[in-house]
Amino acid sequence: MADTLTKDRLERMITRRRDFHRYPESGWCEFRTTAKIAAVMSDLGYEVHLADEFLKPESVMGRSLDTEKEKNRALSQGADAQWLNKISACTGLMAELKTGFPGPVVALRFDIDCVDTQETNDTEHLPVKLGFCSENPGWMHACGHDGHASLGLAVAEYVAEHKNDFCGTIRFLFQPAEEGVRGGHAMTQAGLLDDVDYFIALHLGLGAPTGTVYGGTHGFLCTTKIDARFTGKGAHAGGEPNEGKNALLAAASAALNLHAIAPHRDGPSRINVGVLNAGEGRNVIAPNAFMKIETRGATEKILNYVYERAVQVLNGAAAMYDCSVEISKQGEANTTFSDPELTQIVCEAARETNGVTRTDPDQLMSGSDDACWMMKRVQDHGGKSTYIGLGATTTAGHHNSRFDFDEKCLPIGYGVLCGVLNRLSKK
Amino acid sequence: MADTLTKDRLERMITRRRDFHRYPESGWCEFRTTAKIAAVMSDLGYEVHLADEFLKPESVMGRSLDTEKEKNRALSQGADAQWLNKISACTGLMAELKTGFPGPVVALRFDIDCVDTQETNDTEHLPVKLGFCSENPGWMHACGHDGHASLGLAVAEYVAEHKNDFCGTIRFLFQPAEEGVRGGHAMTQAGLLDDVDYFIALHLGLGAPTGTVYGGTHGFLCTTKIDARFTGKGAHAGGEPNEGKNALLAAASAALNLHAIAPHRDGPSRINVGVLNAGEGRNVIAPNAFMKIETRGATEKILNYVYERAVQVLNGAAAMYDCSVEISKQGEANTTFSDPELTQIVCEAARETNGVTRTDPDQLMSGSDDACWMMKRVQDHGGKSTYIGLGATTTAGHHNSRFDFDEKCLPIGYGVLCGVLNRLSKK
Amino acid sequence: MADTLTKDRLERMITRRRDFHRYPESGWCEFRTTAKIAAVMSDLGYEVHLADEFLKPESVMGRSLDTEKEKNRALSQGADAQWLNKISACTGLMAELKTGFPGPVVALRFDIDCVDTQETNDTEHLPVKLGFCSENPGWMHACGHDGHASLGLAVAEYVAEHKNDFCGTIRFLFQPAEEGVRGGHAMTQAGLLDDVDYFIALHLGLGAPTGTVYGGTHGFLCTTKIDARFTGKGAHAGGEPNEGKNALLAAASAALNLHAIAPHRDGPSRINVGVLNAGEGRNVIAPNAFMKIETRGATEKILNYVYERAVQVLNGAAAMYDCSVEISKQGEANTTFSDPELTQIVCEAARETNGVTRTDPDQLMSGSDDACWMMKRVQDHGGKSTYIGLGATTTAGHHNSRFDFDEKCLPIGYGVLCGVLNRLSKK
Amino acid sequence: MADTLTKDRLERMITRRRDFHRYPESGWCEFRTTAKIAAVMSDLGYEVHLADEFLKPESVMGRSLDTEKEKNRALSQGADAQWLNKISACTGLMAELKTGFPGPVVALRFDIDCVDTQETNDTEHLPVKLGFCSENPGWMHACGHDGHASLGLAVAEYVAEHKNDFCGTIRFLFQPAEEGVRGGHAMTQAGLLDDVDYFIALHLGLGAPTGTVYGGTHGFLCTTKIDARFTGKGAHAGGEPNEGKNALLAAASAALNLHAIAPHRDGPSRINVGVLNAGEGRNVIAPNAFMKIETRGATEKILNYVYERAVQVLNGAAAMYDCSVEISKQGEANTTFSDPELTQIVCEAARETNGVTRTDPDQLMSGSDDACWMMKRVQDHGGKSTYIGLGATTTAGHHNSRFDFDEKCLPIGYGVLCGVLNRLSKK
Repeated sequence: MADTLTKDRLERMITRRRDFHRYPESGWCEFRTTAKIAAVMSDLGYEVHLADEFLKPESVMGRSLDTEKEKNRALSQGADAQWLNKISACTGLMAELKTGFPGPVVALRFDIDCVDTQETNDTEHLPVKLGFCSENPGWMHACGHDGHASLGLAVAEYVAEHKNDFCGTIRFLFQPAEEGVRGGHAMTQAGLLDDVDYFIALHLGLGAPTGTVYGGTHGFLCTTKIDARFTGKGAHAGGEPNEGKNALLAAASAALNLHAIAPHRDGPSRINVGVLNAGEGRNVIAPNAFMKIETRGATEKILNYVYERAVQVLNGAAAMYDCSVEISKQGEANTTFSDPELTQIVCEAARETNGVTRTDPDQLMSGSDDACWMMKRVQDHGGKSTYIGLGATTTAGHHNSRFDFDEKCLPIGYGVLCGVLNRLSKK
Repeated sequence: MADTLTKDRLERMITRRRDFHRYPESGWCEFRTTAKIAAVMSDLGYEVHLADEFLKPESVMGRSLDTEKEKNRALSQGADAQWLNKISACTGLMAELKTGFPGPVVALRFDIDCVDTQETNDTEHLPVKLGFCSENPGWMHACGHDGHASLGLAVAEYVAEHKNDFCGTIRFLFQPAEEGVRGGHAMTQAGLLDDVDYFIALHLGLGAPTGTVYGGTHGFLCTTKIDARFTGKGAHAGGEPNEGKNALLAAASAALNLHAIAPHRDGPSRINVGVLNAGEGRNVIAPNAFMKIETRGATEKILNYVYERAVQVLNGAAAMYDCSVEISKQGEANTTFSDPELTQIVCEAARETNGVTRTDPDQLMSGSDDACWMMKRVQDHGGKSTYIGLGATTTAGHHNSRFDFDEKCLPIGYGVLCGVLNRLSKK
Repeated sequence: MADTLTKDRLERMITRRRDFHRYPESGWCEFRTTAKIAAVMSDLGYEVHLADEFLKPESVMGRSLDTEKEKNRALSQGADAQWLNKISACTGLMAELKTGFPGPVVALRFDIDCVDTQETNDTEHLPVKLGFCSENPGWMHACGHDGHASLGLAVAEYVAEHKNDFCGTIRFLFQPAEEGVRGGHAMTQAGLLDDVDYFIALHLGLGAPTGTVYGGTHGFLCTTKIDARFTGKGAHAGGEPNEGKNALLAAASAALNLHAIAPHRDGPSRINVGVLNAGEGRNVIAPNAFMKIETRGATEKILNYVYERAVQVLNGAAAMYDCSVEISKQGEANTTFSDPELTQIVCEAARETNGVTRTDPDQLMSGSDDACWMMKRVQDHGGKSTYIGLGATTTAGHHNSRFDFDEKCLPIGYGVLCGVLNRLSKK
Repeated sequence: MADTLTKDRLERMITRRRDFHRYPESGWCEFRTTAKIAAVMSDLGYEVHLADEFLKPESVMGRSLDTEKEKNRALSQGADAQWLNKISACTGLMAELKTGFPGPVVALRFDIDCVDTQETNDTEHLPVKLGFCSENPGWMHACGHDGHASLGLAVAEYVAEHKNDFCGTIRFLFQPAEEGVRGGHAMTQAGLLDDVDYFIALHLGLGAPTGTVYGGTHGFLCTTKIDARFTGKGAHAGGEPNEGKNALLAAASAALNLHAIAPHRDGPSRINVGVLNAGEGRNVIAPNAFMKIETRGATEKILNYVYERAVQVLNGAAAMYDCSVEISKQGEANTTFSDPELTQIVCEAARETNGVTRTDPDQLMSGSDDACWMMKRVQDHGGKSTYIGLGATTTAGHHNSRFDFDEKCLPIGYGVLCGVLNRLSKK
């Protein structure tokens, strides 16, 4: 298989990865990335559908940006102008090859957004040393999605090159806004998974070293991301403190009591108030407060318990200070498991791939991924899903400002995914 | 004047004070005290009205006791059986002399209840040394009301002895339940002050040494006493914590946020959660919590602000934990001021009294007294009121388990009150 | 086996259980219970060792009582005077049969204390209806230890009756103070388990109906029971609030932040502030507060994490209010597992017992039991331990004031334990 | 007196006020304002001393800015380049006229900084309508210091014009950074008040309508401004929450308990957490938190009580979460009173001023001003100080984004100050 990875293709994969890394784009802002992928996929002969075509507006969560400003930025950073102009609002795309021969629908998902982290400028950091460090302040590919996007394009090249060998449909989902688990639900609601027989997502890193391949994953935590915005009333803190409605104290009280939500008998749960910003000035009773919260649970039942308790706490805390509170969902993911049979197919493909030193059917995930919506939709319709763990040695934990991964994982990922497609979709 | 204080009368005053001290009775439980006072006043020829005659049930706050049990206790401690039997529920009494001659209605108020404090058994403590320490566990005359009651009876003796010298009506109010400011409002609502021309309350101690007499008082804080009872739901803290509704945490959160109520532009305010009891067992999510709260303010407006904020906080805290909370008023006092003219009359009487070394028209009160209801009612009807500060050197602060006062203040108080009556009600 | 349960023995077992139920005794107060068991065991020919003989004082946690008062109560409730007099301080006992024939040391543990719960007086409650409701206010056998103690005596009768058939040593541990996990550690530290080859503990109920027998148990949570006592400084809340050091607010703040201790990556943890009592009076800044806390964790590492965080929170909260806090351990339990081989032996014995409708090798425990100290000590010395789940239909959850269990579980427990002994210790 | 206010001078006063309003500069950033004032004062013949000459670095609090950036901004907004270049770091200035004739040292203080508020762009707002709305985002003259600065220059013109009529020294203090009470202490520490016989500060507005003049002021609250910076440790909130040290919860707990600091027996106090910013991302245990706090008290004793309690709370809250906290003072003001004699002189001057409809010796201040440092230093050296209240009808409260004041107050202020100087410093 690996012999299909020509030197040219490998170089392109690395070059593209570093280009994505240099121009990272946060969730729903991936205009440059989307335009670039669309151009490549279109040139390869795929039928390209931009997200505006299929995303239902009511399913789009956590999207808040100045579209024009971001498109201008993308353009100034070398986005393909023609494709950029076709995007009116939503980023991400689907591109597929319909072979015309009877066969399964196979979908591969690659997430393309970056993390809201400022990349280190330490000269020991490889992207700094080699000059592909983030040019977008506060944004950084610190989770490896630059690798995912680039890997997807390389696999797409392979498929396009061998299209006559395949049957059924091969569908590439380049998903926006995975961070904050926002885009996965929207793409699922769009119906893109309804006819899929085999679904494959992949994540690099996650603590496993280069050379390891997990055929599947379990233990995803269901999660809901919540913003809470308290509104009270300002007043001079010295002159008439009794006139104020203290949103800062309402939020502080909420934060403490949110973290005090009791655990659930049935399994792990989590809650975090990750961000709290309140107040206008030192001598003013704070009239406003804003909190970013996330709730998690091993099952939907546990998540619902935590979420409902969180809503009680937020409302009660606001009432204590005669404030109002606006609660809005900013993202959601559920949990599911990898199909054992498909997991085995991945492991077989991995064992034939150069550089793979260890295969394992299953890894434990301690976080969340909105690919779960897609996996579950496919499973609910009788299809099979898996979430591959692609080992990649990293220099720091995911989301850390010093994160970098071993690019040697990319040819391995290429080999595994091409191998799986050969097993599932060969005529 | 002081020559009317015969050695016998002085001895009786001291003896009665020590007797009251030995058998202290908490608010609304003053069965023995009431029966004893009623017997004396009746024997002296006064028209005695027990509280059951005049108190309106709906005006009685903070009364919760086992009447039979307390009456039995009173009986076993030497209460006058005949008078005890006449009391069906409420303690306290009014006794008056109607002279039949035209003249003012003068009312004197003496509060008779004790404090919920366990008296020290230190042998240095005078009541221990002389054998009149409290025999009622958890109850103690630690505020001086034993002195007030005894003083009232001595003045009543003087008035009875000289009844032919007086005109108008002289009315003695022996008030129950001043601690927790419960009885004053009830006696006012009963109409006992509606026809009063001059009203005089008195308190011994309050930081002034024996020999000092203040003709009046200002700065009383309005206050409301509140009980809050949270009800949640118990659950095994290890096995199914998610099933609980944690009343302890609701109350803890309420306590913090109650104390964080902002001060008021217009003047001093106070809030205190003095008592918090919650929970049933170490390994059970606490299903209940109980709090004793008091709110204070320099004016009714400020008090209302604090009270309304407190209700918001209590309800919001309960809502955070899906608990219910029952809020009940347990006592109330307002604020008022002493009439300058009447204050001067007191000072004149004081200057003629043996043992008085300093007179002052006005003392500052940093607490509350429900005599304010009576004072204000009289003032609202065009009468004059004052609240005398009777200096008394003490061994410890009021409400302290080691509190004792210098009995030499009693003959001074006797002299001042008799002198005031001679000025107001002499034919 | 069950044919050894004569009508007389069954009746004695029920009668004793109801007698223990009527006179329940809280942990370390089991004077009547201990004296009674000692008398029976001694009469049966066992070598009886009272706890004073073997417990090391420094290993006794959570013991705080008026020994004389409790012994007097026990005497007045029919305790065996001779045995009672032999107890100077600690309750509980060990009684053993040394057969003199080579064979294993088998230890059986029965816990004998009650729960701090007020039993319902509802006439529908069987102990009320039949007249064996608790006579000790605030104490109740609401966990089934009355059944355990009675069952232990019945098994001891069987062993005594058939002593010539047995080899090795059969040791009965009647453990005090299991509630609050206090006595188990002390008995283990006393060395009573150091030579044991097979150790068997048993608990009735736990959610399983009569007829079910679990051969073993897993999932015990390690736990530490903590008391925290805050000392601040009282002050009049109206007059000089700034002089106070508010222990109530320190404790309230601690409670909230204790419950907010983050969960642990490695597995379940728990924390509970079950009881909070603070303050002296409504108008006094609370000078004291007392909290009963428990921490739990699936492993010792997790427990230690929670415990250390709890200590940080308690000290920090006290510091916020310039209070001191005294933290004391009141009990401890660790976790362990049941030995698979011994579990199988229990299941075999169960399958031969009348009334058993279902056997299962393993139940999941969501709580803690200080039998784990004993189990682990035996395992650490190369022995085998198990914790039998004896199904018993109950009228309400454990520790509930309406708890009662189906006494039909007792003959089943008798059959299982005798059967196990026949398998382990028969010559 | 008013006849000295020529039409030209009045127009310049209004023009300058609007110019200052259009280019407001926050505390320690007043480069353009300082340069402009220095140029005018120098041209008028005053001896000008820039702040760099006299401010001691260790006395400069709450100064944190990019000096070059602000100087560039000032230059681009028309600052006098020559004077701007002379400022190396600190803004503000002192300018004086030494007459050479024996006589008192009289100091007048004008504060020149703006507030951190975004000015409204409502077209009904006069500065918007007339085109002098703030050009500096987030900065606004919403307290009237634009009027103070302009008024100071007009009075300086008068003095320069009549310099031969005056004796002693007349000193103008153009103070930076009054907001946040930072500059006043620094100027006092610089010794500028040590030889002053009469000191006069002035504030327009403060709730009094145009035409009212208060000769003096009392009731200033002592205040300390504090920043608190908590440092904990980030960790993935789902994957390893136990690894975090939650600075957000430490700060939330601090905020609640700071607001719960008990009031003081001796008089009013205040505390406010006006701003709280914590956390980095939704799914990260927050590793940092920042709070802006202010404490106030009617006396230094009360302020010290609140400040010391605040430090206890901050340290205790940090300890609860194993975080560190860095506490830094950002500003300070004390309290003082206006001298009655000087107050009378102001009232006399006011009564001779056109447009004055009411004079009053004393206004009550419910806030803080760091002119108190200056007033007190002068009083401590035997001089006399006052703080004039210059009535000015306003469109909204001070610090509000819609604040504007009636410019008719400026000629009144001119008349009063010139009149006072004529009384104090005329030969």
